[in-house]
Amino acid sequence: MNYFSSDFKLGILGGGQLGKMLLNNTRKFDIYTSVLDASEEAPSKIACNEFHLGDLMDYQSVYNFGKHVDVLTIEIENVNVDALEALEKEGKKVFPSSKTLRAIQNKATQKLFYRDNNIPTANFMRFAYASEIKDAIENESLAFPFVWKSAQFGYDGNGVKIIRSINDLNDLPKGECIAEDMIPFKNELAVIVARNENGAIATYPVVEMEFHPEANQVEYVICPARINNEIATKATEVALKVSKAFNHVGLLAVELFLTQTDEILVNEVAPRPHNSGHHTIESSYTSQFEQHIRAILNLPLGNTNTKAAGVMVNLVGAENHTGNVHYQNIETIMKFEGVTPHIYGKKQTRPFRKMGHVTIVNKDINKAREIAEEVKNTIKVISN
Amino acid sequence: MNYFSSDFKLGILGGGQLGKMLLNNTRKFDIYTSVLDASEEAPSKIACNEFHLGDLMDYQSVYNFGKHVDVLTIEIENVNVDALEALEKEGKKVFPSSKTLRAIQNKATQKLFYRDNNIPTANFMRFAYASEIKDAIENESLAFPFVWKSAQFGYDGNGVKIIRSINDLNDLPKGECIAEDMIPFKNELAVIVARNENGAIATYPVVEMEFHPEANQVEYVICPARINNEIATKATEVALKVSKAFNHVGLLAVELFLTQTDEILVNEVAPRPHNSGHHTIESSYTSQFEQHIRAILNLPLGNTNTKAAGVMVNLVGAENHTGNVHYQNIETIMKFEGVTPHIYGKKQTRPFRKMGHVTIVNKDINKAREIAEEVKNTIKVISN
Repeated sequence: MNYFSSDFKLGILGGGQLGKMLLNNTRKFDIYTSVLDASEEAPSKIACNEFHLGDLMDYQSVYNFGKHVDVLTIEIENVNVDALEALEKEGKKVFPSSKTLRAIQNKATQKLFYRDNNIPTANFMRFAYASEIKDAIENESLAFPFVWKSAQFGYDGNGVKIIRSINDLNDLPKGECIAEDMIPFKNELAVIVARNENGAIATYPVVEMEFHPEANQVEYVICPARINNEIATKATEVALKVSKAFNHVGLLAVELFLTQTDEILVNEVAPRPHNSGHHTIESSYTSQFEQHIRAILNLPLGNTNTKAAGVMVNLVGAENHTGNVHYQNIETIMKFEGVTPHIYGKKQTRPFRKMGHVTIVNKDINKAREIAEEVKNTIKVISN
Repeated sequence: MNYFSSDFKLGILGGGQLGKMLLNNTRKFDIYTSVLDASEEAPSKIACNEFHLGDLMDYQSVYNFGKHVDVLTIEIENVNVDALEALEKEGKKVFPSSKTLRAIQNKATQKLFYRDNNIPTANFMRFAYASEIKDAIENESLAFPFVWKSAQFGYDGNGVKIIRSINDLNDLPKGECIAEDMIPFKNELAVIVARNENGAIATYPVVEMEFHPEANQVEYVICPARINNEIATKATEVALKVSKAFNHVGLLAVELFLTQTDEILVNEVAPRPHNSGHHTIESSYTSQFEQHIRAILNLPLGNTNTKAAGVMVNLVGAENHTGNVHYQNIETIMKFEGVTPHIYGKKQTRPFRKMGHVTIVNKDINKAREIAEEVKNTIKVISN
């Protein structure tokens, strides 16, 4: 199929910031795009060739949207998978596949998938209802502390809670969940694996993620991770094993724990461009967004090496600020060396909402990390 | 003024490929943009917030368009300068200024400007009508060979011709023109100077341009130029002198000749993002497009150092091909290391029309140049 002609249509489910950054690359290749999103204010409403309004969880809107495109991809996992499966049965190319999405949409299913495929992951128990957790504690099959995770995807740090005492169980969502061993880890790492339909595979360098203590959101992503080669190799091997198990097409971002004993455990995956790869826009020969497009269109994969070290800082809404967004001191951070802000275009801010990110690129990773901290302490996402 | 809010509007005159690449950066910063172009098929029709149809040379359409934006810039020089001057008088920010545009829109005026400002440039004679050239030759004030240049801007290599004999004068356009000494140059170089309203200045590394012999179009741009530091410094100094003379705000691309005797002569300038800076998207810490936006919005200028060496190949329409464009072998060049194609989105190709470009980035400049040649010999812009 000739992707570089107007006979071809790429469909993207979701019009958020990931879709917006994907579109910079479909525009670069002049690939015709059609976007489905539920919001008239979707960041990728402009820059796509066609915008369709519709609920991503609704069978009919996803099915109808998929019918009119040649290749269908996502920028968010919460989409109607039955519709994707029906489209695949009719021969539509859907990447990631409905099978991959089903395996990961539900965190309990995802964890079981790792267990079934001998992929190292933290021990866990699955519960149909949160209420069952108390019984498990009473009959001593579960002990404090542990990590509660909702089986349904949580966003902006929702859906995950550390449980240290019986009181922490109060006012948890009632639904399906898992209780996971709390891993005393040295470090959280991530590896993005790209794979095209022909089976060509490329991995990005291992990155290191520093989390915000309260918000449970990534605060800094550091590329390459400051770990030794042996651990980097081990992390990459585990990521490739996960990629093989899913047999995905497109990107697969694999989040990992590095334990105190230098074990690598899989935390979770995302079959799409991922926050842990935003730095690649500036630091890599091929951005993760260009790579995703290359992969799902079965084009040759690009070079995943880094041109320079990159550190990414997420721009999230400040606490106690809800309303029309204002990026305080953005001009100031633009003075710092090698700093590029990315503003997603969401008009309303709220505490910890992802509003943008800033990439700092430098030949010296420690210098990049220093500047990143300055950036973090200078720019504030507030309401005015 | 808060550029990062929806109260602000950036106006861009022209919706071609330069505008399209500018828009990737206004999107990145979520800056609201309005574009004026005469064609419904303008490459930047999508990705801008507002698109207005209108003739860039028409006073009223440019004036009316300018009235509704806060800052006005261009991506092409052929715009109605009187309208820009009227807008400036009313306090509108216009970058480049009408004064800068007037000085360069006409090649004869531009050459006189260099002479008046003691900027080294090739000797020339100005003629109100091409017919006057013959008289100059007859009375021996002009001798073969020389370079004829139309005073009006020519595109895609038009408006320039080497005159070796009286016959070469036949069927030249009749209008105002210059006859310029033919410079036996070693090399054509270019330096892009960025300047913001506060007067902050940044220069990009000197690049080397290899021209296509017939088409008189840049075939390869090589960054950094393979010249010694002394010449690079001299070229940069001349470019800064030109920048100072124009006192421009935004980018100024300065095209230079390096003569056999290592003199630097100014060929011509463009007060906007330029073909000689396309490689910066991949090779520099700050792309020329982001830099232009930083400069015209009086934001701090970005780092102009290179992350890696870059070579750019223009994708122009193949000879004997006119019609619906097809990018033959684009998938093949995407296999090569560090290759990124940029397709401008023009639906129709014709011989030597600029349809896109390809950037090759590599730590080793000679390797990048080799791959660039492979790219050039592999991809073909044809009609189907």
